Amino acid sequence: MKNYKLTLSYDGTKYNGWQRLASTDNTIQQKVETVLSRLLDQPVEVSASGRTDAGVHARAQVCSFRAEAELGCEELLAALRQYLPKDIGALSLEEASPRFHARLNCRAKTYLYRVWTSEQPNVFERNYVYPLPVILDISAMRKAAGYLQGEHDFSAFTNAKKMKKSPVRRIDEILLDEKEEELQIYYTGNGFLYNMARILTGTLLEIGEGVRSPEEIPGILSAGKRENAGFLAPAGGLILWEVRY
Amino acid sequence: MKNYKLTLSYDGTKYNGWQRLASTDNTIQQKVETVLSRLLDQPVEVSASGRTDAGVHARAQVCSFRAEAELGCEELLAALRQYLPKDIGALSLEEASPRFHARLNCRAKTYLYRVWTSEQPNVFERNYVYPLPVILDISAMRKAAGYLQGEHDFSAFTNAKKMKKSPVRRIDEILLDEKEEELQIYYTGNGFLYNMARILTGTLLEIGEGVRSPEEIPGILSAGKRENAGFLAPAGGLILWEVRY
Repeated sequence: MKNYKLTLSYDGTKYNGWQRLASTDNTIQQKVETVLSRLLDQPVEVSASGRTDAGVHARAQVCSFRAEAELGCEELLAALRQYLPKDIGALSLEEASPRFHARLNCRAKTYLYRVWTSEQPNVFERNYVYPLPVILDISAMRKAAGYLQGEHDFSAFTNAKKMKKSPVRRIDEILLDEKEEELQIYYTGNGFLYNMARILTGTLLEIGEGVRSPEEIPGILSAGKRENAGFLAPAGGLILWEVRY
Repeated sequence: MKNYKLTLSYDGTKYNGWQRLASTDNTIQQKVETVLSRLLDQPVEVSASGRTDAGVHARAQVCSFRAEAELGCEELLAALRQYLPKDIGALSLEEASPRFHARLNCRAKTYLYRVWTSEQPNVFERNYVYPLPVILDISAMRKAAGYLQGEHDFSAFTNAKKMKKSPVRRIDEILLDEKEEELQIYYTGNGFLYNMARILTGTLLEIGEGVRSPEEIPGILSAGKRENAGFLAPAGGLILWEVRY
């Protein structure tokens, strides 16, 4: 058995997220596994660095899978590019060390959330940005981001129902990059709970709009109640930017 | 009656082009006219600077229309943004002088054709680029572009059947901008015949691939036969970039 590292980009607009579901075959994992299983003529299970929600995109999602393959990486990559749907792209494929696992070995991830702040609509990127044509108080948002950085119990910032595992995560950096027509928010951390990047974004946007103050963040974190945090920002604005090992 | 200048951007992927058709209502002109006619409660006819083919996009298409309107431009623009489909965006709306006409007064237009030359697929812009992962001889293409610039009979570079009007057009500039992962070709001229920008692109690409030589261009122009020119490059890679008055 060989072990492979596959890097994918995808437009998540039409899909029910990364993770395989029993109720539908419309997930990215299923599309990729189906193509790989056919190409390699054996059942292939693909692990990604983490799930992405329905409608969330990936610039560079990293996956791993094991298979017996006669095809070389270049041939397999070319075949993937030919047979994957047009909204799922195979960026690279390489043989990985036998112990490499895309989820278990992941050290840090960066998500980007794009807020389109211009009043002029962006038809070409309409599925990749959240349109919010208002003036945002970026310095208040930066102050709030400062409170969120570091290691915290992020229970207030997830819609996960019951948590078997620890809700403690470390956010290394929240970077706000103001462009002329959009605000880009980069979140880098060692892991993200279900919906976490989108709820962090919703909370930061409410602070940017002046609906809440940055000083509420420490209390929201310590109380750990979802209802204290902000709204769930729409999936389309979120993109998994980078995964590090 | 007031006269208006409306600037639109659109993702042409799903549409049968700009121009109203009897056989379908799936044209951009019909979508815009329907929304304007409802908003202004009167039949509104919209003229664009020129037609765009099915699948061709516009970054900034300029249109004009006449109407009796009580609404101010700002209100009308906001309503257009609300009611137009998500892939048609109203960038700006202003009152124009009574004699302004988007097509008749147009002095020059720039089209951009995007060729995606990287082997790595671009899922996010897949509808806006033509993927051609080959090494192109850009200097040969630039030489050919030099022959195409100027005023010529472009009969060889159109699929228009019978021409009532003159097939002479002036190309002011063909600019080839090589980026890391794509080649951008900008065409600026006083007018473009049916399919002209796409046939120019197909011909330049065949020269870039070494299938033909730049020196063929003068002969193709003077013979004026469509079969001598190159292939019709796919619609999705073409975008109406700018219209000047």
